[in-house]
Amino acid sequence: MPEPQTITLLTDFGTADGYAAAMRGVIASRAPAVSVYDASHEIAAGDIHAAAYALRRYWQTFPPGTVHVVVVDPGVGSARRALAVEADGRFGVGPDNGVLDALIERANAIHALTETALFLHPVSATFHGRDVFAPTAAYLACGGLLQRVGPRIADALRLPPTRLERTAAAVLGEVIHIDRFGNLVTNIPAPVAGEVELDGRSVGSVRHTYADVARGELVALIGSAGVLEIAVRDGNAAERLRAYRGAPVRVLP
Amino acid sequence: MPEPQTITLLTDFGTADGYAAAMRGVIASRAPAVSVYDASHEIAAGDIHAAAYALRRYWQTFPPGTVHVVVVDPGVGSARRALAVEADGRFGVGPDNGVLDALIERANAIHALTETALFLHPVSATFHGRDVFAPTAAYLACGGLLQRVGPRIADALRLPPTRLERTAAAVLGEVIHIDRFGNLVTNIPAPVAGEVELDGRSVGSVRHTYADVARGELVALIGSAGVLEIAVRDGNAAERLRAYRGAPVRVLP
Amino acid sequence: MPEPQTITLLTDFGTADGYAAAMRGVIASRAPAVSVYDASHEIAAGDIHAAAYALRRYWQTFPPGTVHVVVVDPGVGSARRALAVEADGRFGVGPDNGVLDALIERANAIHALTETALFLHPVSATFHGRDVFAPTAAYLACGGLLQRVGPRIADALRLPPTRLERTAAAVLGEVIHIDRFGNLVTNIPAPVAGEVELDGRSVGSVRHTYADVARGELVALIGSAGVLEIAVRDGNAAERLRAYRGAPVRVLP
Repeated sequence: MPEPQTITLLTDFGTADGYAAAMRGVIASRAPAVSVYDASHEIAAGDIHAAAYALRRYWQTFPPGTVHVVVVDPGVGSARRALAVEADGRFGVGPDNGVLDALIERANAIHALTETALFLHPVSATFHGRDVFAPTAAYLACGGLLQRVGPRIADALRLPPTRLERTAAAVLGEVIHIDRFGNLVTNIPAPVAGEVELDGRSVGSVRHTYADVARGELVALIGSAGVLEIAVRDGNAAERLRAYRGAPVRVLP
Repeated sequence: MPEPQTITLLTDFGTADGYAAAMRGVIASRAPAVSVYDASHEIAAGDIHAAAYALRRYWQTFPPGTVHVVVVDPGVGSARRALAVEADGRFGVGPDNGVLDALIERANAIHALTETALFLHPVSATFHGRDVFAPTAAYLACGGLLQRVGPRIADALRLPPTRLERTAAAVLGEVIHIDRFGNLVTNIPAPVAGEVELDGRSVGSVRHTYADVARGELVALIGSAGVLEIAVRDGNAAERLRAYRGAPVRVLP
Repeated sequence: MPEPQTITLLTDFGTADGYAAAMRGVIASRAPAVSVYDASHEIAAGDIHAAAYALRRYWQTFPPGTVHVVVVDPGVGSARRALAVEADGRFGVGPDNGVLDALIERANAIHALTETALFLHPVSATFHGRDVFAPTAAYLACGGLLQRVGPRIADALRLPPTRLERTAAAVLGEVIHIDRFGNLVTNIPAPVAGEVELDGRSVGSVRHTYADVARGELVALIGSAGVLEIAVRDGNAAERLRAYRGAPVRVLP
């Protein structure tokens, strides 16, 4: 017997309005044997970058066959396309606005969702999570064929690249995400060593772990995503440094 | 083999205090084969209307046999009754304070929970979610009979009706819910057309979708619940208009 | 066929950064038949006491065999040990910092996690939830042996005891938790009767339920944990009384 398939959901819906639950109900009705996991509904409203970052952190930890649904979709009801992507044996389903960037980067196939027979009808103008993405995910999780959801495309939207330069004098990158703890995640991959500056302010040399500095001190280290992070031990680096997404980070060897 | 049954939970407990988890544990112990889904624990404390609204958005998207538990229960420990409702093949379980309004409206049967043998003992005075509603839901999800939970009743509490009038000159309704995005959900059902006013302020004519206006502009449209909504494209209408639940909405044809 | 095992997760990760989802993915990959429940990811960052309190509220409501994972772990990457505990047929997995206090109090066996072959490699310095605790929980939920995770230890960290004294004149205790509703949970167990004071301010005699006082009035009662609680009916006692964890509570018989 094959293992049960899994669908994960990532949205900016919150939970209190019943939108996320409506998606779950559609999946429960169409794919009752599928396991569904709510990765998060707490993405900031409309924050495509934050959704794309979160997805990047977990999509490959799930087994092949998993269908990752992402609905951060400020363009719902406009002409923006809807996508299903296959990468590394996992699937991604969501709007064509960059939220699926992690899978698109490694995609074996990307299809536009045009097969309206798969949708829930009538399709609303404002809630494709329920009417388009949930039923498509249910279809794929039940073994539906990617080529049946619509035509293959080659021009899915990617997020704009972040700045990452290596010169003889330094590595120049930027903050790409600020997490709940106020840790600043950069785009500078390991291995990296040297003195770290955020927006011109020194945060010391690259360390191994939080405990390498005293409580309340700034620390730069390689975080769990394999990239340079800037933190305050038992504190909040984003508040301390008034940091922001896109803030420049420099490492001087 | 029958499909596994599902229980959904909707409360104002949050998750951090362990109350919601205690309900889940009771269900896991009494009905281990049942699938449980936490619809939300983020209803504002004691907000019966918000819970009733959220339930209305999702209860019918789940398949027949689903047991929907709602515990927003400021009257816990008082003489208020506890209910189990059957409507459209789904069940509702919760206090008799209006939270189950969506199911009561279409109920085939409503029973008071008086069969104390089903409860978890000792029954606390403050946490019927764990001691009364979770075990009753587990019983029903395992195929228990509605008539065994207690006597049938005919006077379950309903929420007060909202104002909705149609005159030759206009349709008069009100805001019944404000969602996470600041969208204002009204009680005016589709089809509806004409000029929309909120609390005397014009929000333009009824459109099809957000993209029919420029970013930052007010837009009235038929939302995913099939009723008129007022939104700001990529913005927050509730903040913009200082709107509130109950605010009058008028549509002039 | 044995019932499916359950893993519960309790962390301070929030959900929006993808950390909790990464843990779920690891478990889904290593233990696909296990049922996983996210008890909460909303513990305040680094609040070991709050996590230990929440776990205490639910761990025994789950059936024997359940694996309770708790990751509130400000010492991650330091020399602090990682633990697996067995108590009352349930398991606890988490850092050795007191978060597992409820199980340690009744433990039949406590083992340090030193068998690195069970971990996800490379083990990061900052995210043992994904790399150490999730895979260990997956191993135990699949029937792995506690003695295989590492050596038995006898000196697991406990939380400092709270103050609870009984004199001829009074019972003296303290607030140990403030919940989402602003209810003040004390460490004074039932049965208890008499006049209650918080921080020197009278809150009346011990009552049975919220409805024993008028709306907006203070009420002391035995809550669902079997200990004295102080609440405001339909209100927030923590705000009203400016209460804090550790505030002294006195009951005069």
